[in-house]
Amino acid sequence: MKFSELGEFKFIERISHHYPSTNPFVIKGIGDDAAVMSVSRDSVILVTTDQLIEGFHFQLAATEGWKLGWKALAVNLSDVAAMGGTPVGYTLSLGIPTRRVSLTFLDEFYRGLSRLGKKETVALLGGDTSESGERLTISISVIGTALREQVVYRNGANDGDDIYVTGWLGDASVGLKLIERGEKTTEALELIERHLCPTPRTREGRLLAEKGIPTAMIDVSDGLLADLNHILHQSGLGAEIELSALPLSQAFRSCAAPCSADPLMLALGGGEDYELLFSASIGRREEIEGICEDLSCPITRIGRLSKEIQGILLKDKQGMTRKADPLGYDHFKTNRTSS
Amino acid sequence: MKFSELGEFKFIERISHHYPSTNPFVIKGIGDDAAVMSVSRDSVILVTTDQLIEGFHFQLAATEGWKLGWKALAVNLSDVAAMGGTPVGYTLSLGIPTRRVSLTFLDEFYRGLSRLGKKETVALLGGDTSESGERLTISISVIGTALREQVVYRNGANDGDDIYVTGWLGDASVGLKLIERGEKTTEALELIERHLCPTPRTREGRLLAEKGIPTAMIDVSDGLLADLNHILHQSGLGAEIELSALPLSQAFRSCAAPCSADPLMLALGGGEDYELLFSASIGRREEIEGICEDLSCPITRIGRLSKEIQGILLKDKQGMTRKADPLGYDHFKTNRTSS
Repeated sequence: MKFSELGEFKFIERISHHYPSTNPFVIKGIGDDAAVMSVSRDSVILVTTDQLIEGFHFQLAATEGWKLGWKALAVNLSDVAAMGGTPVGYTLSLGIPTRRVSLTFLDEFYRGLSRLGKKETVALLGGDTSESGERLTISISVIGTALREQVVYRNGANDGDDIYVTGWLGDASVGLKLIERGEKTTEALELIERHLCPTPRTREGRLLAEKGIPTAMIDVSDGLLADLNHILHQSGLGAEIELSALPLSQAFRSCAAPCSADPLMLALGGGEDYELLFSASIGRREEIEGICEDLSCPITRIGRLSKEIQGILLKDKQGMTRKADPLGYDHFKTNRTSS
Repeated sequence: MKFSELGEFKFIERISHHYPSTNPFVIKGIGDDAAVMSVSRDSVILVTTDQLIEGFHFQLAATEGWKLGWKALAVNLSDVAAMGGTPVGYTLSLGIPTRRVSLTFLDEFYRGLSRLGKKETVALLGGDTSESGERLTISISVIGTALREQVVYRNGANDGDDIYVTGWLGDASVGLKLIERGEKTTEALELIERHLCPTPRTREGRLLAEKGIPTAMIDVSDGLLADLNHILHQSGLGAEIELSALPLSQAFRSCAAPCSADPLMLALGGGEDYELLFSASIGRREEIEGICEDLSCPITRIGRLSKEIQGILLKDKQGMTRKADPLGYDHFKTNRTSS
């Protein structure tokens, strides 16, 4: 069998099955946004890693050095946010095709890392740099901390919980298409920026976790349906999503139509929004509305969880429902490139 | 300026200067074998990362899947050992050229990771896998723990300290040359194994640190002289090395001569031995001899530190000294390939 037939998720499942975690300090190994390690009675350490490989995750010509650095760190901070943690530092492995990539570009790359690092008070802890031949390869691991009782896993959702998402959906995938189309309008540039420089929802994730609101949480990196599916799978539930409730930005509404025959699919299936998707008890609705007022991004209720539902149902304005296919970005099954 | 002119160490210095660590929990960022983060009054977390890129750090045809997995983890565990810590878990970023690398090879790769992981009680915490085009790229980050008071840095060496090294020097670099020469004798295979499957000195590092013996420590990854130079630079000292004291294995003595016009240079300058190099007060000599008896590898006194010496002096049997050039593997200045 080949990777392309197996797919990334099945491959990870396979590895996870063959090689279970075997250290007594590990509370959660493979299978969530970040691993969780016990360090004291009250505290845990969170660890996560994500890589960006030129030509598969980004095109050098379509981004700037500092934006690439920013994004490489942001996608990792997003994983710590999805556990409700506080990022502390990161390590960086950088493979550099030295014939093509200039020191100036690399300085810019580090400037982007540093800019987001300062904003989030996250330190560069160390790294490894090497010649890499053809492609610029970036692998970052972020270490964070959390109070043991506040960590939010994917498997804690309950029957009847509401489903929420921060920010806006689909902006990043429309942004990617607009790069390919060479669009330069103000709204197009806004969406392209959302693709190139995602904002990790660290403050939102931490605030929600501190208040004990989310029963389960994940970041939207592979697409709403695919990531929701992880929560459903691990919590043993199904979900109904209200299509009319999906948070779509003004720029998305203006630009999505020419990019896809079914723009809503970009909001449901497009990846890299790095928003937080979480479940919460119905009893917390008022409190969540209150939190929204303190934050710079909205938190929108988009559906509910139910043990009576198999998989994901999509409900339209007229109340008609249809079954969703949990699409998502698979690093082996597609060759989508982004930046 | 290009990378090839700047070199890896200068590049890291430059980055470290521009982007200092900025999180209050970080005790030590860039510049040691691993970063050190405060997690409780008594304990710290260690974090280190190392990558292996096909064609630069290894040749697929010259190794086996499980050995590559073993080595990728071993070189990181070695860094935790050099701080005196205990490894707990690791993350893995894997870039796979899926047209060339089979699932069978990858299963073997994970078997090697798992084999060393079980031996050292280190868990796979998570990872990221992706198509990578041309080269197999492996980046591992290891997380370890240590008691705050037992962490050994590179900068603690004192004037007059002895210099010690665990195990044997030069085996791995002779092993690499023997792979290139296609040698298959028993002794050649022993050295090749030392190159392909290094043994991280985790037990030795921890035992030494628990007893508070090393004043400074580093692992020999870039070559004895280059790594000693890091200790000298950070501790503000010079060193004298007794050439006749260097620990050379029987296999090295048999096989090194045809590999180099100056075999001793392979012991002094060859990298990837992953032995521990440390300094200790003269008063600890007897205790160190005692520890040696409990361990499966020797610990050899090879010289002394002095503030009167500039750089490194090499002293031969006749008592003649000459100045050493701190050679070492530079990931940009050479294109050496291994394993």
